[in-house]
Amino acid sequence: MIAETISVGTELLLGQIVDTDAVAIAKALSSLGVALYYRTTVGDNEGRIREAVSLALSRSDLVITIGGLGPTMDDLTKEVVCDVMGASLVEHGPSREKLDNLLAARGMTASPNFFKQALLPKDTDGRGVPNPNGTAPGVIVEKDGKIGICLPGPPNELIPMLEQSVVPYLGQLVSGERKVILSRVLRITGIGEHQVEELTRDLLLSENPSVAPLAKPGECHLRITASATSEADAESLIAPREASLRARLGDAIYGIDDETLEFAVVTLLKSKRATVATAESCTGGLVAHRIATISGASDVFHTGIVAYANETKTELLDVDPLILNEFGAVSEQTCRQMAENVRARYGATFGVAITGIAGPTGGTAEKPVGLVYIGVATATETHIERHDYTGERTMTMLRASQSALALLRREALRL
Amino acid sequence: MIAETISVGTELLLGQIVDTDAVAIAKALSSLGVALYYRTTVGDNEGRIREAVSLALSRSDLVITIGGLGPTMDDLTKEVVCDVMGASLVEHGPSREKLDNLLAARGMTASPNFFKQALLPKDTDGRGVPNPNGTAPGVIVEKDGKIGICLPGPPNELIPMLEQSVVPYLGQLVSGERKVILSRVLRITGIGEHQVEELTRDLLLSENPSVAPLAKPGECHLRITASATSEADAESLIAPREASLRARLGDAIYGIDDETLEFAVVTLLKSKRATVATAESCTGGLVAHRIATISGASDVFHTGIVAYANETKTELLDVDPLILNEFGAVSEQTCRQMAENVRARYGATFGVAITGIAGPTGGTAEKPVGLVYIGVATATETHIERHDYTGERTMTMLRASQSALALLRREALRL
Repeated sequence: MIAETISVGTELLLGQIVDTDAVAIAKALSSLGVALYYRTTVGDNEGRIREAVSLALSRSDLVITIGGLGPTMDDLTKEVVCDVMGASLVEHGPSREKLDNLLAARGMTASPNFFKQALLPKDTDGRGVPNPNGTAPGVIVEKDGKIGICLPGPPNELIPMLEQSVVPYLGQLVSGERKVILSRVLRITGIGEHQVEELTRDLLLSENPSVAPLAKPGECHLRITASATSEADAESLIAPREASLRARLGDAIYGIDDETLEFAVVTLLKSKRATVATAESCTGGLVAHRIATISGASDVFHTGIVAYANETKTELLDVDPLILNEFGAVSEQTCRQMAENVRARYGATFGVAITGIAGPTGGTAEKPVGLVYIGVATATETHIERHDYTGERTMTMLRASQSALALLRREALRL
Repeated sequence: MIAETISVGTELLLGQIVDTDAVAIAKALSSLGVALYYRTTVGDNEGRIREAVSLALSRSDLVITIGGLGPTMDDLTKEVVCDVMGASLVEHGPSREKLDNLLAARGMTASPNFFKQALLPKDTDGRGVPNPNGTAPGVIVEKDGKIGICLPGPPNELIPMLEQSVVPYLGQLVSGERKVILSRVLRITGIGEHQVEELTRDLLLSENPSVAPLAKPGECHLRITASATSEADAESLIAPREASLRARLGDAIYGIDDETLEFAVVTLLKSKRATVATAESCTGGLVAHRIATISGASDVFHTGIVAYANETKTELLDVDPLILNEFGAVSEQTCRQMAENVRARYGATFGVAITGIAGPTGGTAEKPVGLVYIGVATATETHIERHDYTGERTMTMLRASQSALALLRREALRL
């Protein structure tokens, strides 16, 4: 099966956004063994969309369009694809109902073009691709041996639709001719990329499975990729390689694939029947928020304090004003009190504290921008780390939250 | 002048790298006033490169290729472009010399294809585009009113060549017809994309300046784009259009270009000498964190409470246990107490509260997943909004934080 993608959007041609959707689709097609021969980008111009779609359908079996499914006059893609393929559009009941419910819930009235989002190809009722994160469903048209798939442009809509609907649909189609490419990502924190590389150097040279490192803020990923004729065969190539990497990296591997560090922490705390309370200054609640993104976090997390001001540190975290005065808000001593007191006062197994200078202003020679103290307190001991991050404000906040979760995980593993 | 780009490289079609080169070229062409109508990506396959180049030359004045200029057998782009354009390649003395010197300096012998990097179009001696960071020079071919430009793929080679050679070359070419393209993004929150469109429909049809809507989670952007012969002229096209959009959308426009909603809120609070305290349940600290990402947030933000558990709501936010018992944690009544009490107890001008069900579990028929109450309290009154979000957990959290910041902004504007 030969495929191509067409990205629609003038903002792409002006270089205003990067086309991450097309990259995600390219990856997905590659893992399905579908050959992608062309990627084209056109603006929101009916004539040029039509030309690109016609050309693509003339030379490929599968054409996937990205963008142009919304409720505005600019959104033309679905109409053009269906017109070129000779599929007529009719209103799709459940999609219309979803739009009606949405308007009712928000107490809004629809603009004239709003309901065109519920139009789907006539002969493919139910072949709309459900869009859990947006109003415009995707479309699959099968006609005369060709397949057209239209997906919306916002990545938070397209990516789930790709994973949940398009990949399974295509996987079924190509299963006869398919070669399986299976990947597993090992997620590592607490040791640097070069240490990971040093420990695994010989394994990074292997071919099938291959092992590729990827550095991320505050962590490192190793992607093991195997290709075989079946999932089971690919898995049996990956398993021994994963085992040898685990033997070398041990607890530094905190999760696999899409498991985040916060997921690993919440899962671990749950399994230990432990809880955590947070006391954050410079990160402003990022650690608490990351924990809260995990469904079921309420089992392990009850209270978080964002103590941006010194008075709040004293009032809600019982930090001694003399300590603040003598050592400052960004100090090991203050961090220690924050961690120990948030734990004790709010009744958690672990207390996590962060205090630092995220920048770009506020640094001094003695306490430069990027200096962050991170602490984790248990009933019996408190560990404080000093970090000197480089980079801009939000990156420092992200790295600090990552270090705090990594330290919390290390302490929880010892419980 | 109509342009298109062709990116060459199988790794692009496998989704292994993101095509930042094409984005850089798109931006450069836009700033030169050259209209980019198509971007195409093909693999390292002679037939398909030829097809793409032929098609591009048939419909555009300028074709820029990216990649495929190196010394391997896979590198075919220059040969194909010159062949399609009818330009013969001959060895270019200075380029050959550079390759010889390089080999000598590194004590290496050349691979069979190495010296093809010194081949340049016969009639354009000196029209090689110097490559300060690599071995393969770029190529400019002018023939029969068409221009072909070939640049190497590595961004650290392409970007300097683009800036130092290609942009000046094209700038000179189009100087007779030189156009500046200027854009301004108006960022809108509190009203939906289709409402924005309804209010601005006639303006969305205009040509110069054009106005294009773009939906984002919890907000909408309108991009005004003008082209003129000078920045001042472009600005004088944008200004009246911006004024009429502002007249229609009023306070719903919270910022321009890269200004985030949290930036607008912190700036507004500063200008009013006001402060905010936050009380968050389901968002787990996201509102506090977003405020804290703005440098100087400490002037307006001192205390945030993440009250994930009911006990915390009672203990730190003085929510009446009877209210929690009768109406539940996710209720207008609880939200009201959270907003009013966080304001009063922690001494801020505004209290912001969020309580809801982010999902995927925890919903009931009466209180479904996605139900979120948002409140903002001042000294004299409290506004509560009920939202019914669709979508997954982190998206609901993001939208809720967006609605809370938008409501806070609305109240602060009235101060």
